Amino acid sequence: MRLLKERIQRDGQVLSNEVLKVDRFLTHQIDPELMKAIALEFVREFADSGITKVVTIESSGIAPALFTAYTLGVPMIFARKVKSLTLSDELLTTEVYSYTKKGTRTVSISKKGLSSEDNVLILDDFLANGEAALGLIDLCHQAGAEIKGIGILIEKSFQPGREKIEAAGYNVHSLARIASLKHQQVTFIDE
Amino acid sequence: MRLLKERIQRDGQVLSNEVLKVDRFLTHQIDPELMKAIALEFVREFADSGITKVVTIESSGIAPALFTAYTLGVPMIFARKVKSLTLSDELLTTEVYSYTKKGTRTVSISKKGLSSEDNVLILDDFLANGEAALGLIDLCHQAGAEIKGIGILIEKSFQPGREKIEAAGYNVHSLARIASLKHQQVTFIDE
Repeated sequence: MRLLKERIQRDGQVLSNEVLKVDRFLTHQIDPELMKAIALEFVREFADSGITKVVTIESSGIAPALFTAYTLGVPMIFARKVKSLTLSDELLTTEVYSYTKKGTRTVSISKKGLSSEDNVLILDDFLANGEAALGLIDLCHQAGAEIKGIGILIEKSFQPGREKIEAAGYNVHSLARIASLKHQQVTFIDE
Repeated sequence: MRLLKERIQRDGQVLSNEVLKVDRFLTHQIDPELMKAIALEFVREFADSGITKVVTIESSGIAPALFTAYTLGVPMIFARKVKSLTLSDELLTTEVYSYTKKGTRTVSISKKGLSSEDNVLILDDFLANGEAALGLIDLCHQAGAEIKGIGILIEKSFQPGREKIEAAGYNVHSLARIASLKHQQVTFIDE
């Protein structure tokens, strides 16, 4: 997606060979117009998949998932990383390791939110090692829901996330695939 | 706002005299159409305030804040509750006590995100004891930004949040004001 790649080049900051910071338009300050354009890309890809729910994980996945759900005319659910007092009954849970946070945590979705009737589009902001996406896949499995695809905004293609998800049998649709962050530069995969 | 009040009556669950669970349309599963209607309410109230940024706090504030920012044509920023490796430089921080989580945590916004040029609309899903809103007010102060108003979806008016914010000199605009959750019933303030 040209618009997203241009925005990454303009406003992204390469912090290391592995870390790209996009807090000026996606992970902290959010550009709503860009989220809408991103939603239209995902809708174009998944319009014929009979999606009934868009599933993401807090917090940076919420904005693109919300606009995509809005455009598809379906509800959105975000998996929670922390159990709160008001979200304790009948949870589906899974363990997700975060390389950024260097720790494992429980991620949960309410059993009421997903069922075997659902066709799910999983969306997330980043795909790196695939841990978050595999956690969301596990939660959908537990609910008996059918996963129609995994939509990703920024894929770090030099990390094994895509490989793991494809090995699990799922289709990954990424809007920007980064080949390398070496030399403080973002290089995209030619497509 | 009639639509929100009806939704609370239909899909909200009163867990105790103090706790209302709205995870079927706001805090876990989100109804994007409702978020859009909510955004239009806030825009009607704040359209003439010259808002340049909508500021909220993760995670449940993101959806209504995003649609409101989109409708106003301005960026949205969400304050983060957890410091991540990629968001460590030049942060404005404040301490927020959560009665739900029973603990204090640091909430932060990037210095790059807000400046003295900004007119801010602060938005949040709930107003109870006012801790989160006062934390966001403090962050805006630190940035030198002007706060044009505080928009709240669900105000628990039997708790002291509104009083504290008004005492600090700010206008609170709440879409649904709850007088009581006693007897497992949601009673709204007559307006």
